[in-house]
Amino acid sequence: MRDNFATDFPLLKQMVNHEHLVYLDSAATSQMPEQVMAAITDFKKTDNANVHRGVYTLAQRATERYEGVREQVAAWIGASDAREIVFTKGTTEGLNWLARSLKIHQGDKIVLTMMEHHSNIVPWQQVAHRLGAELVYIEMTPDFQLDMADAQRKIDGRTAVVATTLVSNVLGTVTPVRELAHLAHRNGAVIVGDGAQAVPHMPIDVKQLELDYLTFSGHKMLGPNGIGVLWGKKALLDDLDPVEFGGEMISEVGLNETTFKPTPWKFEAGTQNITGVIGLGAAIDYLQMVGWKQIQQNNQQLVQQALTALAKIPGLEIYGKPTDMVQTGIISFNLAGIHPHDVATALDMQGIAVRAGHHCAQPLMKALGVPATCRASFYLYNTTTDVTRFVDALVATKEFFTNGIS
Amino acid sequence: MRDNFATDFPLLKQMVNHEHLVYLDSAATSQMPEQVMAAITDFKKTDNANVHRGVYTLAQRATERYEGVREQVAAWIGASDAREIVFTKGTTEGLNWLARSLKIHQGDKIVLTMMEHHSNIVPWQQVAHRLGAELVYIEMTPDFQLDMADAQRKIDGRTAVVATTLVSNVLGTVTPVRELAHLAHRNGAVIVGDGAQAVPHMPIDVKQLELDYLTFSGHKMLGPNGIGVLWGKKALLDDLDPVEFGGEMISEVGLNETTFKPTPWKFEAGTQNITGVIGLGAAIDYLQMVGWKQIQQNNQQLVQQALTALAKIPGLEIYGKPTDMVQTGIISFNLAGIHPHDVATALDMQGIAVRAGHHCAQPLMKALGVPATCRASFYLYNTTTDVTRFVDALVATKEFFTNGIS
Repeated sequence: MRDNFATDFPLLKQMVNHEHLVYLDSAATSQMPEQVMAAITDFKKTDNANVHRGVYTLAQRATERYEGVREQVAAWIGASDAREIVFTKGTTEGLNWLARSLKIHQGDKIVLTMMEHHSNIVPWQQVAHRLGAELVYIEMTPDFQLDMADAQRKIDGRTAVVATTLVSNVLGTVTPVRELAHLAHRNGAVIVGDGAQAVPHMPIDVKQLELDYLTFSGHKMLGPNGIGVLWGKKALLDDLDPVEFGGEMISEVGLNETTFKPTPWKFEAGTQNITGVIGLGAAIDYLQMVGWKQIQQNNQQLVQQALTALAKIPGLEIYGKPTDMVQTGIISFNLAGIHPHDVATALDMQGIAVRAGHHCAQPLMKALGVPATCRASFYLYNTTTDVTRFVDALVATKEFFTNGIS
Repeated sequence: MRDNFATDFPLLKQMVNHEHLVYLDSAATSQMPEQVMAAITDFKKTDNANVHRGVYTLAQRATERYEGVREQVAAWIGASDAREIVFTKGTTEGLNWLARSLKIHQGDKIVLTMMEHHSNIVPWQQVAHRLGAELVYIEMTPDFQLDMADAQRKIDGRTAVVATTLVSNVLGTVTPVRELAHLAHRNGAVIVGDGAQAVPHMPIDVKQLELDYLTFSGHKMLGPNGIGVLWGKKALLDDLDPVEFGGEMISEVGLNETTFKPTPWKFEAGTQNITGVIGLGAAIDYLQMVGWKQIQQNNQQLVQQALTALAKIPGLEIYGKPTDMVQTGIISFNLAGIHPHDVATALDMQGIAVRAGHHCAQPLMKALGVPATCRASFYLYNTTTDVTRFVDALVATKEFFTNGIS
């Protein structure tokens, strides 16, 4: 069995600022293995055509491959039926469509968590303003977990929707989705999962989690930009109105009236990101080739190594719980007295890419009482050498900002 | 100067049903030259990162390249300012956003043409139903042109929006957009152009055409799937509300209130199709390398050759005006007594890919009095040999359906 997958990722072989690049921003976007690039190029070279529309051989091959990935995605997340898979341009679009289409009425509650990404906040704010619904946030405990007592108080009979991330993109917190689903369902609400961070890092079974909807993105799981998935239970999707209209999603168009195709095609207006779908399929192939066991062991090893070393740096504060971080590969931190942007810039000068900022989670930043954090996020191509380089660079950065260059 | 660009397109080198493929469905989706594939792969191998978000070198390079294509697109369509370029996932999304966001009130008229693609019909139907606006269609003349006398009658003081294609995807008709813009503006309406078919085939200058908005797609102009452009006059875009919400497009997010970035970034929620943008830039590079003169000469030569040969086939009816078809490379036709799907299937058996159906333009099909047509559409990679093969195969198809195989 292979134990180092970095060699499949051409981007990682480059020098940045005279050092070998260490890429630790996979929670923002992941790198792409040559196998996925080759699958995309191969599709363009052999089967590229518009889908569903042509009777000719090429169009039929393209359609078969496109619909084949729908089946593949369904199997991968434990969906009952390929028709539960809607292709979107990414997590954000899926969440926007749900916020726009779910049955929410004046006075209803929309329950979010304090850990949400802006993409799982702002669409709900808009719908709350428009319809006169109330936004409510589940608080955190001091150890960066969801406060489930607060969840029990807030998810009540007035609740129409509970929308929660499966994994915090800042803290790495793995949220208790199944328990939230129980609370939602007991109160007649639906539960929406933001899987952007979870789906790339752990096996997800939508039935086991008892979700109603799940959204995620290809580009965070070794796949292309501009492709994502909205999964929903078939009966719920059947009941949901499409948000975009045009070619492909229609059954009959008259001058004033139009009928739509069945689920999921009624949601897919216009020429779809066909190559994106092919690339998503290839990314799943790659992840399955590596296997969850290896992905998770690598994650765990790297995060444990990092946490052990980081604990020895005085003034370094970590936001998150180790048992979460080892599952998700996300470590958020600050160095006392040094702005996170300066830390990230200093790391970059040493060839190390980490992200600094609010990570599209300003409400969470406020709850943490910080304007920003640094975040190192690991994926299957990272190595123990990367961790060593990262920690050494952090130590040098602290030294530089404390004492200046000697 | 090169005069045959087919060699740059690997897909065209294949055999289909034991014959060399002749691809004549570029109006549905175009093929991609190796140069564009290489540009995309090169980006993934060297500069792939999330844009706008990171302080590290890789993210800065990705952001510069992403924003660089915005400038490139602006220059390419004669926009005043790169901030007038909004990246979308395609023409259909741009039209949906406009239909949702433009100021339309109860009793207003939305004026379309009888030639529109479903993507420029169904979004307006939805908004008309929702707001109580009236949909009106400009009729055609018997020679497949817009009836401008009818346009003058229908575009009046009650009109809020005139939405027209620049080129009919079925007939190849080049619509008099500038005259429609005058009529719209004289009546206080805005004009929206669907450029999906026009932008790949002719130089477009949004100022010269006096448009207010223009939408088009990358995949019809040698670029990737899942990327398109919504252009609008800066002041109009400033005044338009975003339709999608989430990461990237925000300025500040509070628990209940959010402020947005300025135009165009307020429209680009979530991680964008960054690779799609890079590929779109590479496609423009390629089109500029070939040059409009060569693209249009090739189009004209092929369509004239085809029209001359098709005129000799008894019972073959063509829908469209030759002066339009030579500009746009689109020829729609039917063979008397043979269903267009049977024609397309028979052509496919001879290695020739043409489209048969309603071409996402059912109202136009009704106006033409046919259920469907065949459509051959040419692009810069097609050759005179392709035309000969196409015509010979049509003759053989007619012979087969008339007399059977001898």
